[in-house]
Amino acid sequence: MDIDKPAALRATFADVPRWHFGMLNDSVRNRQYRNAIAKKLPGLDVLDLGMGTGLLSMFAVRVGARHVYGCERNPAISSIATEIVRANGEASRVTVLGRSSHDLRIEQDIPKRLGGLVTELMDCGMVGEGLLTSVSHARRHLLQDNARIIPEQIEIEFCLIQSEQIFNNNHVEHVDDIDLSTFNRYATPGYFPVRLRAWPFRYLSGRKSALRFDLERGEITAREELHEITATQPGIAHGIAFWFRAQLAPGIELSNDPQESTHWAQAIHCLERPQQVSRGETIELRIATDLSKIEFTLSDRSSKHA
Amino acid sequence: MDIDKPAALRATFADVPRWHFGMLNDSVRNRQYRNAIAKKLPGLDVLDLGMGTGLLSMFAVRVGARHVYGCERNPAISSIATEIVRANGEASRVTVLGRSSHDLRIEQDIPKRLGGLVTELMDCGMVGEGLLTSVSHARRHLLQDNARIIPEQIEIEFCLIQSEQIFNNNHVEHVDDIDLSTFNRYATPGYFPVRLRAWPFRYLSGRKSALRFDLERGEITAREELHEITATQPGIAHGIAFWFRAQLAPGIELSNDPQESTHWAQAIHCLERPQQVSRGETIELRIATDLSKIEFTLSDRSSKHA
Repeated sequence: MDIDKPAALRATFADVPRWHFGMLNDSVRNRQYRNAIAKKLPGLDVLDLGMGTGLLSMFAVRVGARHVYGCERNPAISSIATEIVRANGEASRVTVLGRSSHDLRIEQDIPKRLGGLVTELMDCGMVGEGLLTSVSHARRHLLQDNARIIPEQIEIEFCLIQSEQIFNNNHVEHVDDIDLSTFNRYATPGYFPVRLRAWPFRYLSGRKSALRFDLERGEITAREELHEITATQPGIAHGIAFWFRAQLAPGIELSNDPQESTHWAQAIHCLERPQQVSRGETIELRIATDLSKIEFTLSDRSSKHA
Repeated sequence: MDIDKPAALRATFADVPRWHFGMLNDSVRNRQYRNAIAKKLPGLDVLDLGMGTGLLSMFAVRVGARHVYGCERNPAISSIATEIVRANGEASRVTVLGRSSHDLRIEQDIPKRLGGLVTELMDCGMVGEGLLTSVSHARRHLLQDNARIIPEQIEIEFCLIQSEQIFNNNHVEHVDDIDLSTFNRYATPGYFPVRLRAWPFRYLSGRKSALRFDLERGEITAREELHEITATQPGIAHGIAFWFRAQLAPGIELSNDPQESTHWAQAIHCLERPQQVSRGETIELRIATDLSKIEFTLSDRSSKHA
C-alpha cells in the first residue's frame, strides 16, 4: 500500500515551481555536485537540505555515502521525492523527511548528529532560498563538529551595469503626459532575477567579490562590507548585477556567472535612480546581508557625485 | 481625507505582479493603444476592462472619450489606480471600480450600457488573462449593441520549433543512471511563457493563423479547428510557439510576435514527446479553446508518423 499516494494526488501543478525542470536538466550543476559529493561524502551519514526530487541524495548513496536524510518542506515535492527514490530502488538508503530542516529533531528524525551535508539552496542571489540560515542552523543542531559541507565556501561577485530595459522592469515615470511614478511604491525591494543574456546591457565595471562565507568552518552571521568599484567606461549605471561563486569541494566550483550556462538567472539590484559615471570614477557601495537578503546602498560619498 | 489610503498601505510588493513595470514601459504597446483609442473612442462612455494603473483610461479621456469606467479586481492595483488617476487630475472623468467586470451592475456601478470598450487583457497566449470571457460577458451585459471595441479582432499565429533547452524547462527523463521521469506528472498543462530570444531554438515551419475572433461583432464561443502545418526543414519538433495578433483599430495592429519588441514573452506548448520531422512533412494539429485556455493536440494521422 502506497501511503504517500493520497498527498501526491492531492498536489497539483501549481504547487510545484516550474524551475525544477530546468534545474534537474542543468548538466553543469549536476556534474559538479556529483563530483563534489564523490570527493567529500563517501562513508558518511548525510543531510540533504532542500532535497527536491532527491537527485543529490541518490547521487550521494550511489557514490558511497552511507545513508542520506533528505528534508524538503514543500509537501508536493517531498511526496514525489518519496516515489522517485523508491522507483530508483534507494528507499532503504535515502530517507525523505517532509519538512524544513529547522524542524528536524535528533533521535526523532535523524538518529544522531550527521557527518556530512549537501545542499543546493542557492537562488540567483545566493541567499534567497535560505542557504545561509539553513546551513548555520544545521551546523548548530544537526551536524558533527567536523562535518563535511557542500558547498564549503560561497561568495558573490558583482559589477555595475547599464541597461535601461532592465531598469524599466522595476521603475516607471511618465508615459506621454501621464505621471505614473506613484506606482514605484511597488518596485522590487532588494534583488530580482534577470537572465542577463535576454536583455541589452553593458558592463560599466569589472567584477569584485564580496560576502565570502566559509560554510564548513567559518562564522555564518549577518555582515556588512564596504567596497569600492571603479567604472571602466563612461555610462549610466542602472544597477548592480551579481551572482554566486560556490566552491563545492576543493577544485570544484559552480557559479551562475552570466558567462556560464546554468539554469540560474542573475540577480539584479536596481539603483534608486540611474547615475552617470565617468571612466575611472570610483563608487563606494555598502553591501549588507542579514543572511536572508542582500542589500546594496551607495555610500554618502558616492551619492554626492550623483 | 484619503479613503483609499488604508487599502493602499496594507497592500505590499507581493500583491503587485512584476510585469506591470515592463508593460507600462512598453512604448510599442502604449503608442498603438493610444492611436487606436483616438481613432475609435472619442465622444463615448467607455469600459476599461482590467484597467491596471489606469494608463489606458487616462489616454481615453485625454483623446476625447466622455467618461471611462475602469474595473480592476486586484485591490492593491485598483487602489493605486485611484491615486494615480487623482494625481493626474482625471478623477472626475475616470471612475475606478475595484472589482472584476463580471461583478459590475448597470445603475449600481455604471449608469447605463456603454458605447465603447478598451482592454489589454492579453497574456502571451492571448486567452490566459480572460480576454475572451470578459469581452463576451461585457457585450452581453454592459455594452450597447453597436459598441466599439478595442481590440476589434484577434487571432493567434503558431509554428513548430526545435529547442531542447525550452523542452527541458518542462520535461525531465534520466540524469546519469537516475530515473526522474515520475516528475513529469507536474509538467505544465497547456502553454507557458518563454522569451524566445533568450534561448537557442530553430523554426521548423512557417507561421499559420488560427482561432480568429471578431471581438466587436462576431461570436465569442468555444471553438476547435484542424490545421495542417508543413515542416520547412528537417529536425526534431519539441513544441509549438505561438503569439497573438490583435487588430486594435483599422490599420493599427499589436502582436507579441518574436520579431516585435514588446514586453510580452511568447507562448510555448510542448509536445508530449519530441517528434522527428522531415522537410515537407505535413502535421495535422487540433487547436481548441474553451475561451480560457488553448490546447494543441497532434491528430491521430500525425501521431502515426512519430
